[in-house]
Amino acid sequence: MTIPLNETHDPSLRSWVASANTGSTDFPIQNLPYGVFRRAGTAEAFRVGVAIGDAILDMTAAVASGAFNQASEGAHTAAQACRAPVLNDLMDLGPTAWSALRLALSRMLREGASEQAALQTCLIPQAAVEYGVPARIGDYTDFYTSIHHATNIGKLLRPDNPLLPNYQWVPIGYHGRCSSIGVSGQAVRRPVSQVMRPGASAPVLAPSARLDYELEVGIFVGGSNALGEPIALDAAEQHVFGLCLFNDWSARDVQGWEYQPLGPFLSKNFASTVSPWVVTLEALAPYREAFNRPADHPQPLPYLDSPTLRASGAVAIELEVFLHTAAQQHKGLSEQRLSHSNFRDAYWTVSQMVAHHTVGGCNLHSGDLLGSGTQSGPAPEEAGSLMELSRGGKEPIAIAGGETRTFLEDGDTVIFRAHCQAAGTARIGFGEVRGTILPARTVA
Amino acid sequence: MTIPLNETHDPSLRSWVASANTGSTDFPIQNLPYGVFRRAGTAEAFRVGVAIGDAILDMTAAVASGAFNQASEGAHTAAQACRAPVLNDLMDLGPTAWSALRLALSRMLREGASEQAALQTCLIPQAAVEYGVPARIGDYTDFYTSIHHATNIGKLLRPDNPLLPNYQWVPIGYHGRCSSIGVSGQAVRRPVSQVMRPGASAPVLAPSARLDYELEVGIFVGGSNALGEPIALDAAEQHVFGLCLFNDWSARDVQGWEYQPLGPFLSKNFASTVSPWVVTLEALAPYREAFNRPADHPQPLPYLDSPTLRASGAVAIELEVFLHTAAQQHKGLSEQRLSHSNFRDAYWTVSQMVAHHTVGGCNLHSGDLLGSGTQSGPAPEEAGSLMELSRGGKEPIAIAGGETRTFLEDGDTVIFRAHCQAAGTARIGFGEVRGTILPARTVA
Repeated sequence: MTIPLNETHDPSLRSWVASANTGSTDFPIQNLPYGVFRRAGTAEAFRVGVAIGDAILDMTAAVASGAFNQASEGAHTAAQACRAPVLNDLMDLGPTAWSALRLALSRMLREGASEQAALQTCLIPQAAVEYGVPARIGDYTDFYTSIHHATNIGKLLRPDNPLLPNYQWVPIGYHGRCSSIGVSGQAVRRPVSQVMRPGASAPVLAPSARLDYELEVGIFVGGSNALGEPIALDAAEQHVFGLCLFNDWSARDVQGWEYQPLGPFLSKNFASTVSPWVVTLEALAPYREAFNRPADHPQPLPYLDSPTLRASGAVAIELEVFLHTAAQQHKGLSEQRLSHSNFRDAYWTVSQMVAHHTVGGCNLHSGDLLGSGTQSGPAPEEAGSLMELSRGGKEPIAIAGGETRTFLEDGDTVIFRAHCQAAGTARIGFGEVRGTILPARTVA
Repeated sequence: MTIPLNETHDPSLRSWVASANTGSTDFPIQNLPYGVFRRAGTAEAFRVGVAIGDAILDMTAAVASGAFNQASEGAHTAAQACRAPVLNDLMDLGPTAWSALRLALSRMLREGASEQAALQTCLIPQAAVEYGVPARIGDYTDFYTSIHHATNIGKLLRPDNPLLPNYQWVPIGYHGRCSSIGVSGQAVRRPVSQVMRPGASAPVLAPSARLDYELEVGIFVGGSNALGEPIALDAAEQHVFGLCLFNDWSARDVQGWEYQPLGPFLSKNFASTVSPWVVTLEALAPYREAFNRPADHPQPLPYLDSPTLRASGAVAIELEVFLHTAAQQHKGLSEQRLSHSNFRDAYWTVSQMVAHHTVGGCNLHSGDLLGSGTQSGPAPEEAGSLMELSRGGKEPIAIAGGETRTFLEDGDTVIFRAHCQAAGTARIGFGEVRGTILPARTVA
């Protein structure tokens, strides 16, 4: 499936929400991402909103305003599904309903729309809210789709044999922990766990000394497949609601000791952080690119290959990592960009992840989250983790203000941002996901 | 924590439900396990029940009958929490409430109880119902607690180095898939996935040819810990509602190709099956045994060790695997016992699993499911999987009726049963978990 461009993608569209028309906002009228929010500092129930400029359209209020009374049946139904504390009901409805709601929102938020008066009262400044995790996540799966990341990490562990034989055939993935997934702003306590120190004969219980971020794209599933019924590659994107930013925090020393033979466990399950805004696949349609495997690489097996995949399987999303240390904050220094990469460089696409995940019959549900795995690009400065940037902790990175880093220190704030831009299109952004490292608890 | 024996454990207790007094039933009045059920073939909502003999006490009906009106406040509250389609609300209440409800149920179901007339109308024959998954499972974690299984499997993969260096230090675990967990009676479609055949230069998409069961104990969490706040070893069992039987179906050929470096994925996520009845930790109190590490093994780190653990950390549960092939069923032959083992032989206990899972701050919630990992005992005939019994498929097992097996074939039904018995106690059982293999879907 390729989503065709339509009037909602027109780069000349302007909104009656003036802050949406600046050219630099992440949330112009061509974007319209979904999230859940409440007024900051209250105990209100979370509710669904749509980001527009520096504001949020409160969907519960918008429905109550009557703005959707004259909308298409699909848009009306989808808007009703937004009267909920999470996006799962909307995600359940599928791409026709998602598209109908997007068209209705685009028309209502345009300059000159008759709904302006009614909807103006349904806007809340983004600065006045706090966010929730956008969906009730039933299962979370983390993939490993960057061959550059897999090779970089492999070189540190196995210099002679960095890339395992299955990598170019299998979209490698593993199941992760749902309960510890939080939303941007999460305070992440440095985990305490078993580590085996170099040269030691026995492990110790200690705070992780190699705490890291992982720059990932999060993929929210929409709709379900029955247990035992795979989703074919070309139908896969009909089961994807949208994309977000995702930080899959990792304790490298814990992982190194625990991960054989069954994979990461405590090294990952202490926290993961999603961005508040989910950018729909339809909003990303203008930034789709060809997906090509280098000719000297194994080509995907038939269940992971199609002409549509080759024509438009990739999504060009420019990803950036920023660090803001406690010392920098204290000195009034700005955050510092550590690296950047692009999701177009992923070795496996969103549709390949979905098709592979389900080929054996595994059932996906609305709200399930897939992580793309760390997105590192081909160049060294495009590495999506400190493990890679510091060459396994051997080469400290210089930080503005006179500090260095190999891994994260207490008080560090990590921020990911992302945006898409292409010739003849609007620039749309993902907002950000940020998290701050708290000191470990005291080990008795 | 050790749960003290009390009047509910008295082996001389008899119930006014006559089938509970046979001595051979899994469900005497000393057991009182919880599950969810509805009348077979209906679309009724599932509801909570308690197994007693060959019947089920419908808890919604029992509450409505007024039987709990004179019960203790704790029992009354816990009984109200049973008016739900899953056990999560009851699991949330914690051990004091669980114990109060058990005492009330034990007294009401005893011979001579004044509630007999009211409750008699709340009984439904087990033969007339179908079961649901007992809890809404937020996260599922599979452990690997049998050193015999780890060694047996390790010998097949790494003859010179069967047990990895971390095994005796770390309760190895990994996150699994919740969506594909079903209840006893599940029909399991043979998964299709990528496999790399011996000597091949490229993988193929094919039905698994090495489909296996894994004999596991399931552990249902009750209560929650906050993210970042570990559960100490001696408090761990306060966060355990009860135990069940669990079949963690595995596709060995798929696993062998996909599992490095991040662990099992499609080889496990096509299906897992729980038994309908959850036996509470309090019911298991008479079958607790000392937990001792051999003196020449590394002793557990302090966060995984305590005098209470040493005194009573193990639970003696006799586990059995039965196979009933389609040909046996056709010929009228009975199912055949393939192996048996005992949960007392686990290298890591229930409390160690909980303490390790949370030591880095991971938060558990009511309804979370922990799998014990395949329970194999020290003797070859105590292996908990076909992979072990057939020595990696090299030594076919003879099956009554003239068949042999290395791995599971289409139409095979696998049944696990379990019971506990000790001197001076009643015999209690877990019922069974069964599942049948369906042919793979056609691969295009």
